Amino acid sequence: MSGARTFRVVASAGRARAGVLETAHGAIETPVFMPVGTQATVKALSSADLERLGPRIILGNTYHLALRPGAERVASFGGLHKFMSWPRAILTDSGGYQVFSLRERRTVDDDGVTFRSHLDGSEQRLTPARAMAIQTALGSDIAMAFDECPPSDAPRATIEAAMTRTTRWARRCLDAPAAPGQLRFGIVQGGVHLDLRRAHLADIAGLPFDGLALGGLGVGEAPEVMYGVIDAIAAEMPADRPRYLMGVGTPQDIWTAIGAGIDMFDCVMPTRNARNGQLFIRGGRINIGNTQHQDDPNPVEEGCPCECCASYSRGYLAHLFRAEELLYHRLASIHNLQHYLSLARRARAAIVAGAFPASPW
Amino acid sequence: MSGARTFRVVASAGRARAGVLETAHGAIETPVFMPVGTQATVKALSSADLERLGPRIILGNTYHLALRPGAERVASFGGLHKFMSWPRAILTDSGGYQVFSLRERRTVDDDGVTFRSHLDGSEQRLTPARAMAIQTALGSDIAMAFDECPPSDAPRATIEAAMTRTTRWARRCLDAPAAPGQLRFGIVQGGVHLDLRRAHLADIAGLPFDGLALGGLGVGEAPEVMYGVIDAIAAEMPADRPRYLMGVGTPQDIWTAIGAGIDMFDCVMPTRNARNGQLFIRGGRINIGNTQHQDDPNPVEEGCPCECCASYSRGYLAHLFRAEELLYHRLASIHNLQHYLSLARRARAAIVAGAFPASPW
Repeated sequence: MSGARTFRVVASAGRARAGVLETAHGAIETPVFMPVGTQATVKALSSADLERLGPRIILGNTYHLALRPGAERVASFGGLHKFMSWPRAILTDSGGYQVFSLRERRTVDDDGVTFRSHLDGSEQRLTPARAMAIQTALGSDIAMAFDECPPSDAPRATIEAAMTRTTRWARRCLDAPAAPGQLRFGIVQGGVHLDLRRAHLADIAGLPFDGLALGGLGVGEAPEVMYGVIDAIAAEMPADRPRYLMGVGTPQDIWTAIGAGIDMFDCVMPTRNARNGQLFIRGGRINIGNTQHQDDPNPVEEGCPCECCASYSRGYLAHLFRAEELLYHRLASIHNLQHYLSLARRARAAIVAGAFPASPW
Repeated sequence: MSGARTFRVVASAGRARAGVLETAHGAIETPVFMPVGTQATVKALSSADLERLGPRIILGNTYHLALRPGAERVASFGGLHKFMSWPRAILTDSGGYQVFSLRERRTVDDDGVTFRSHLDGSEQRLTPARAMAIQTALGSDIAMAFDECPPSDAPRATIEAAMTRTTRWARRCLDAPAAPGQLRFGIVQGGVHLDLRRAHLADIAGLPFDGLALGGLGVGEAPEVMYGVIDAIAAEMPADRPRYLMGVGTPQDIWTAIGAGIDMFDCVMPTRNARNGQLFIRGGRINIGNTQHQDDPNPVEEGCPCECCASYSRGYLAHLFRAEELLYHRLASIHNLQHYLSLARRARAAIVAGAFPASPW
């Protein structure tokens, strides 16, 4: 397994692991939360903002970047790192999740997916080879395999068919050329059926991926159902490769999954919820649109080291939110990302210290 | 004149002056451009962004702040500086320009203006005393007198009536309590009529204001007409007090006015035009929405020290603009403000060197 060359576990506490993943753009300490930079920007933040927040890796979206500005255009700028002026690691998804979300606009065949762009309605096609070619053109440090991601309420037979196709596509992804130093991660499907998850894990783990991801979770199923799958499957994923839970979730979701042995996370929740007025604080959330915050001179979260909490009050944030000022989005996104990044760092510190509590608070 | 205690001219070149204005939040070197922070934020920018750009003074709008979040609320946070976390100087306008722009929604009497809020239609009233009380509650370093600002195409008699009212209101403004260390500037009206401008200048200059402003310019008249007024009037304004040209204008406007003896400027043009895709470069402007910029690896302006030009290409900006990403607004605003701030610094350096060229490029 090539993953063994790039990932090592340095400490553990129960099933929780602290590790280091080497990439072409630096080493990443795990557990890690990866901010989502869909369109070559983590929404509202510059690369200097990200440097101050300190993540060592962010995520980019193949589907969005391929449509606009176009993978070849990004390549002409020297790749996604140079285009967005981000010197640290980038993981790109494969576009699978996005195109399968376009339920009315796509047709699947054994070789790929034909779909219509949400931007201009133009016909587009993604195949395993094309998804990897895009990620190679973008020059990401970690490329995800192109998978079929069925809806959370799909019949068992549909999920099995998606698993079979995902495994066949996974081999094609590994056959495609990679960018220099680019790692590749495989994706395990199987819905909420433990037997299917185990079967697909065996298939994908048998391929020489550098890491393995759980896809198709946090897509509508009840939290306890998702926790059940993670609890059963995470610890069965190969111990010598990084384990990535895609697109999940709340701070408690992430803490729970770390306890089950997951190493890597991404989610739009901190940035999307920020824009909607929801700010994370230890043990909960506040809605900055509530009247009570207008006269509050305290920071969003006492003791938080982010630029928002260091310089501004809840009252000021509440004003910016009501006045629909652009600065609101940036400060709120900075705070919520700080909350998630601090959570992952706190988790790692707890694991290294040999104890991992059930709650992050 | 109290202005003589707080302002001194340190160099001149022709009619252009380099000066220093002392305020309760630091000394300001003139000529100076003041970024506009209408609603307690320079749009899209944090106070740390402003610190990096380096202006020593910004502007806040009495009309907007009084309606939302409310002057008393800002006072409860310790004033506008603390509310928006800005440690340097702030000039507040008086609300006059804004309420007189609400043509359909306001009625003027000899004591003030009754108008309807653009936010909720509620009836509001501004008088000289109230305008100054708001500015005192905000705690600005420079408060502007409450003036009547007639439309640019108003009949001569209307302009004369506005001058008379403005002078009477100016005395009431000076009678109102000031915040500690707060300076007050009077506003000279008179439209584009040089005889009226001179008459009103004599009235306002006879009052103990710390500085004098030209209002009612750049409001629709032809540039050469405006230049004519500035060219004739600026040099006749008291030499021992700062001269402020309100709300003007393009880089060339500002350079021309500096040459005529103006010291202080504010304008929404750099930030508003940025949001619409127009970026200032030496000698001109580009529209980042034009197709040609999509593949351009060069910065917006070669040699510009701003965060936008130091880290990003025109191609990246063009992508952010098309993708309607929040980051676009911030980077574009940073660049355009840098352009204006650099212009004023270049002007000062030229004056100190004893020569002031007709063109800034």
